[in-house]
Amino acid sequence: MQLMVVGGSDAGISAGLRARELDPTVEVTVLVADRFPNFSICGLPYHVSGDVPDWHQLAHRSLEDLEATGMRLLLDHTAHRIDPAVRQITVTGPRGHKQALGYDRLVVGTGAVPARPPIPGLDLPGVHLLHSMADVFAVQQAIKAGQPRRAVIVGAGTSAWRWPRRSPSRELEVTVVEQAPAAMPTVDPELGEVIGRELAGHGVRLATGVTVRAIHPDNGGLRVVGDPWFDEPADLVLVVVGVRPDSALAAAAGAELGARGAIAVDRQMRTNVPGVWAAGDCVHTHHRLLAEPAYLPLGTTAHKQGRVAGENAVGGEAIFAGSLGTQVVKVFELAVARTGLRDAEAAAAGYDPVTVGSVEFDHKAYYPGARQLHLRITGDRTTGRLLGAQLVGHHHAQVAKRIDIPATALFHDMTVQGLSDLDLSYTPPFGSPWDAVQMAAQTWTRAVRGGRPTQAATNQARP
Amino acid sequence: MQLMVVGGSDAGISAGLRARELDPTVEVTVLVADRFPNFSICGLPYHVSGDVPDWHQLAHRSLEDLEATGMRLLLDHTAHRIDPAVRQITVTGPRGHKQALGYDRLVVGTGAVPARPPIPGLDLPGVHLLHSMADVFAVQQAIKAGQPRRAVIVGAGTSAWRWPRRSPSRELEVTVVEQAPAAMPTVDPELGEVIGRELAGHGVRLATGVTVRAIHPDNGGLRVVGDPWFDEPADLVLVVVGVRPDSALAAAAGAELGARGAIAVDRQMRTNVPGVWAAGDCVHTHHRLLAEPAYLPLGTTAHKQGRVAGENAVGGEAIFAGSLGTQVVKVFELAVARTGLRDAEAAAAGYDPVTVGSVEFDHKAYYPGARQLHLRITGDRTTGRLLGAQLVGHHHAQVAKRIDIPATALFHDMTVQGLSDLDLSYTPPFGSPWDAVQMAAQTWTRAVRGGRPTQAATNQARP
Repeated sequence: MQLMVVGGSDAGISAGLRARELDPTVEVTVLVADRFPNFSICGLPYHVSGDVPDWHQLAHRSLEDLEATGMRLLLDHTAHRIDPAVRQITVTGPRGHKQALGYDRLVVGTGAVPARPPIPGLDLPGVHLLHSMADVFAVQQAIKAGQPRRAVIVGAGTSAWRWPRRSPSRELEVTVVEQAPAAMPTVDPELGEVIGRELAGHGVRLATGVTVRAIHPDNGGLRVVGDPWFDEPADLVLVVVGVRPDSALAAAAGAELGARGAIAVDRQMRTNVPGVWAAGDCVHTHHRLLAEPAYLPLGTTAHKQGRVAGENAVGGEAIFAGSLGTQVVKVFELAVARTGLRDAEAAAAGYDPVTVGSVEFDHKAYYPGARQLHLRITGDRTTGRLLGAQLVGHHHAQVAKRIDIPATALFHDMTVQGLSDLDLSYTPPFGSPWDAVQMAAQTWTRAVRGGRPTQAATNQARP
Repeated sequence: MQLMVVGGSDAGISAGLRARELDPTVEVTVLVADRFPNFSICGLPYHVSGDVPDWHQLAHRSLEDLEATGMRLLLDHTAHRIDPAVRQITVTGPRGHKQALGYDRLVVGTGAVPARPPIPGLDLPGVHLLHSMADVFAVQQAIKAGQPRRAVIVGAGTSAWRWPRRSPSRELEVTVVEQAPAAMPTVDPELGEVIGRELAGHGVRLATGVTVRAIHPDNGGLRVVGDPWFDEPADLVLVVVGVRPDSALAAAAGAELGARGAIAVDRQMRTNVPGVWAAGDCVHTHHRLLAEPAYLPLGTTAHKQGRVAGENAVGGEAIFAGSLGTQVVKVFELAVARTGLRDAEAAAAGYDPVTVGSVEFDHKAYYPGARQLHLRITGDRTTGRLLGAQLVGHHHAQVAKRIDIPATALFHDMTVQGLSDLDLSYTPPFGSPWDAVQMAAQTWTRAVRGGRPTQAATNQARP
């Protein structure tokens, strides 16, 4: 059987690997648009920031590793057209050579492209969108050639891009301008303030509630202008305002589109086109707390969906369990994490949410090095069901894996109160007899229900 | 209503607090045998080690905090006899004064006492068992007065005591002698080797597979002798071989005893004696993976059981959700964690266990500071059900909260394979697109089932 995969990033490679793992007789061909298969998009900012000096390291697997699994990778091959009636795909190779390749099963993993906000000046020299290795090389070239001293980063969101950990060069003054009222629009403003202080402490200026209107050339450099009252000179502008699904190839082949123009798939990652599956940042996503699919491009989801698509493309019956939007980012010394729904998202989905914040130590305060964790728990007032959690704290306070506790609880439809029943690990240097997440849950219950239990012997909202 | 609580440690205080939270009209009296209510037993070794210099800090709450909740605490009060027929308890106060106190409801939280192994010489000067603040003061006094240079610690177990993080004094040479074949009998020998290397790297000598036969006086000091071939001089000997439940008071009042002589309770923490509940290290424990209650004295469990007992003593219907034996300890720079059952425990309980080890990085290897995690996953060969997980790694590699992922999965009866469906957080500095726990689970599935799925769309072993 010929399995064709369009896209050599997380979803596509996961699909190919899973197919080969289950059926080593399947011939897998992966079309990679550039020369960088299986590169960690989430890792790009850490290369720009200098944390990861060698870009070669950003590959999850090397080309040799990938080929050793028996997959065939066609680098610098762009797919133009899928003809599902005859199961052919038209591609252009590195020297412009066009050819039609046949397939039995096809997995589309075309990913996302950076969103281009309607701002005049995006094409000026010195203005960069960031998504691919090519973008990264362009920024590095600009820094090397131009020795910029002032950078403006448009957009503080996290869905497609991460904060540079430190300035790309030591002398670079960085200003971040964000349309939302607080840093990190993915968490509540109460936590945004904690993040804003961290940025300020590292010399990064943050302008929130500002809509950028234009980027102008100015005196050999650039000028970023916005409402209200934003006017900053810059030698370098990075625009990182999120991504949109790259679904054109599939759509032209007859694939239905869903949320935000992403390819519509079922939970087996099947499109409506016979013989075509799709996965990753190009598809909409089943969300375990929402009735309708959402667009939630995340690397973790791309890996899971790719694995499901690969399994099913070779005859399996795997089902994507669904996303909860669990994510974490590093902001200097802070880790900023969330899972599930925030208050407004939950209300829009028909829940009756209440969000309660609390501050707890990550481990017993008497043991040296205890750090404050800022937590916010969202639960349903009527049913007591856990709907979401947000967590900000020092990156040594186990924030990333601590958010995985409510993430796993959400997966199982637990109540807020049920979190206290979990048997979690404890020793004074690492935790508390009730973990910070459990203390935050108890604070929620006290605030919403006066501490009273809802139902005896019940830790799940749905039986 | 008069609620009497015997014991001022985790279980007793939790019971009193919960009762007052739910019904502020309840009069709560807590009998505390010493002058140290609500002290963190798990924190004692960190005081001995010098990490926590001021012992006052070891209290979860101060006496003032506790009294501010409206509870009455009777310090230096020892309970001698419960007379359930007339609901009275006989106590001795600080000056030897005996009195009988009435109660309507009683919660027994008498805790545990250190096990005394059958070794001649335990009563010699310089030999210490460690469990209470008084024991700690005695060790400190011995160190101050005697300036010991060589210490032998008998027992490397973790159920009641923790490793001293560093020598109690800088010049102290420490030898640990353990009956089990590897360091830390709570995890598999394969992980014990990792721990042994960590100890050796910090100058702690470890003798495993040795049964101590006697402690002799020797030339003004001590001599610890064991089989095979163990004979070490010592100025100080600490014996930390676990604990046994302090259930005599309840037993004399007619309470049935269960596993290891602990007080038998149901999941509402009721004893068979009318009006008497019990919780913490003095009771046997419902284990979610075992048909029969086990003896598993842990601080986390004591807090949870105390809360359930306190709630039910004032008319509630709370049910203790059960333990999974989740625990973590710090061994110099390592964190050693486990949850659920090990292979032999699972086999004894009637499962068909397979345990598969793997080594994974805690976060993407390309981001600086990646550390190796040693994982062992135990699952049932027939059903695929997750039965346990063990995890050893650097304490900055989020080991303590990472074990909480399988702990939460076990709580919900997940399969090993189901772990891969969890939506966990990821960013290169903190994790991988598949968390290390998920990669270890996939390794288990490949080893046991050749990677093939068991049941489509199923992530729980039991529906």
